[in-house]
Amino acid sequence: MTEDINPSVPTLRRLPLYLHLLKEMESQGVFYISSTLIAKQLKFEAIQVRKDLSVTGIIGRPKMGYPIPELIKKIQEFINWDKTMNSVIIGAGALGSALLGYNGFEDSGLKIIAAFDSDPNKIGSIIRGRHVYSINDLNDFIQKNNILVGIITVPAEFAQNICNRLVEANIRSIWNFTPRVLETPENIIVKNQDPIRGLAELTYRLKKNNIE
Amino acid sequence: MTEDINPSVPTLRRLPLYLHLLKEMESQGVFYISSTLIAKQLKFEAIQVRKDLSVTGIIGRPKMGYPIPELIKKIQEFINWDKTMNSVIIGAGALGSALLGYNGFEDSGLKIIAAFDSDPNKIGSIIRGRHVYSINDLNDFIQKNNILVGIITVPAEFAQNICNRLVEANIRSIWNFTPRVLETPENIIVKNQDPIRGLAELTYRLKKNNIE
Repeated sequence: MTEDINPSVPTLRRLPLYLHLLKEMESQGVFYISSTLIAKQLKFEAIQVRKDLSVTGIIGRPKMGYPIPELIKKIQEFINWDKTMNSVIIGAGALGSALLGYNGFEDSGLKIIAAFDSDPNKIGSIIRGRHVYSINDLNDFIQKNNILVGIITVPAEFAQNICNRLVEANIRSIWNFTPRVLETPENIIVKNQDPIRGLAELTYRLKKNNIE
Repeated sequence: MTEDINPSVPTLRRLPLYLHLLKEMESQGVFYISSTLIAKQLKFEAIQVRKDLSVTGIIGRPKMGYPIPELIKKIQEFINWDKTMNSVIIGAGALGSALLGYNGFEDSGLKIIAAFDSDPNKIGSIIRGRHVYSINDLNDFIQKNNILVGIITVPAEFAQNICNRLVEANIRSIWNFTPRVLETPENIIVKNQDPIRGLAELTYRLKKNNIE
């Protein structure tokens, strides 16, 4: 039923923030929350909160607000975080290691189950509890372990090569942390996460503010 | 003159990609480029390229396309990358180190000139050519070195504390790599760069695709 609603990208990007807050509230024994309180906690406008949450199909109750357990469930279902999604990281350098140690994935279903690298010094090692395998074993591993997401953290010049290997292994989606724009078949979902794009937003607003 | 145009966030986020491509073309001795060729290289639609680039005020020449050096200059001016912006990183862990080693900032004016940490084992060390100082020296350093951007890469539970210290030191903007929503005065520009928001986009599209 909710599949008909196409959320905006900014809405999608805010849903994890709601989820995190709601889980925190729930763990404190709170079972209902108003859009006003959510707005206050996250520094959003209440009207935006109501609009964002409406994409999940939830309806707040008058004078009580949203039932937290139900809202958590609806958000998780909406962004597909109610399932486990196995992923691997390719590139066990500084950024790959940082992601392996990042604990922000707790609320999501994303499990990074292994890392891959071409450096003989890294292959066979364990980083943050995950084995580092040779890039030559990537194809086999993906097929055998139902890997849905390939996370690319290699230097930019190797990104397309890694992407090609992932495509050959029938990966469903790629999370690309490099600045390289990847060539992929249309059926592969690619999300670019290069920080340089965010920097443009920040520096543009900096300039705007200096002018004002 | 171009200050009147309010670009969309997706446009802002694409401008660094154009810039990178244009610099590459220029270094190969190419001086004009058509929107069609840019579109092909970056896998965008030509009409989107023309719309994106129009925010800079540039006008392509019939049968020749855009003059590359001028277009580079206009994009840089538009997103404020024609100036040097000094920044510091707070949190010299895995993510902070990854950012210190990230070479994607070359095209931008962002210079990360130092790192700060509270760990005595890290203070005094050098990571990727940058000194790691004690967090207690942060205020002084910011004031003396004209630091415009504070990059927060500490664990989420310390993010608000670091944010407060940056605000006390009169920082102009904060690039927040933690999942924590920060409380700041209105005049501080905050850009949140937590990867978890991008993950929601990816997993939502995965679900959509499975359904189809």
